[in-house]
Amino acid sequence: MVGKHCILELYDCDHAKLNDEAFLRTTITTAAKRAGATLLNLITHRFEPQGVTGLALLAESHLSIHTWPENGYAAVDVFTCGDQTMPEQACELLRQELGAKNHALKSFQRETPAALATAVRHPKA
Amino acid sequence: MVGKHCILELYDCDHAKLNDEAFLRTTITTAAKRAGATLLNLITHRFEPQGVTGLALLAESHLSIHTWPENGYAAVDVFTCGDQTMPEQACELLRQELGAKNHALKSFQRETPAALATAVRHPKA
Repeated sequence: MVGKHCILELYDCDHAKLNDEAFLRTTITTAAKRAGATLLNLITHRFEPQGVTGLALLAESHLSIHTWPENGYAAVDVFTCGDQTMPEQACELLRQELGAKNHALKSFQRETPAALATAVRHPKA
Repeated sequence: MVGKHCILELYDCDHAKLNDEAFLRTTITTAAKRAGATLLNLITHRFEPQGVTGLALLAESHLSIHTWPENGYAAVDVFTCGDQTMPEQACELLRQELGAKNHALKSFQRETPAALATAVRHPKA
């Protein structure tokens, strides 16, 4: 396995949590850890009158969340590279923390070149 | 159409461009415009000894790119919401600018609640 991409739809979530930028920052950070990933940067934006977007830059790729509190909905994707990461674990944590009563998860392998399996790189200090 | 997600693999790209953080920032910005999207924030990270990740926070969702210059490869995803955006246009611009000799593009609709079609929201000033 080199690159795995999870696409997660979260339905019937807790509306207040979907609109709570600080809560989402904490939850994204926890989700990245749960996936076994290293969080290098995190940006969020709160929309008016509601809704939040969060993008986490990971050493192993990224995690994104876009929320529509008025519909109880969040669109998530988690892309990780390497055999040590578990993007589904991040999805599961987000599902639980946001109180999603329903969800749909799709995951697929990215069509990476075979040589990537041996690529080594590190975050800049 | 409410949410469209494009997953793009770029192969046999120009190695130098894949490792050029400033070039990628400019190109991501242009790609967002080409998609008809509004760029709200852009973060990038350069890895050692090579490779760059860029994440663009859009009013309409996000654009990501992860590059492996040593393999001439870039993994892209563009997720946009709304009828006014054209994520494939961003993909096409990235393909051209990075000099990809081969590519694979998949796109699919996100399973958003029907009510999102009428959702209105704006970036915070």
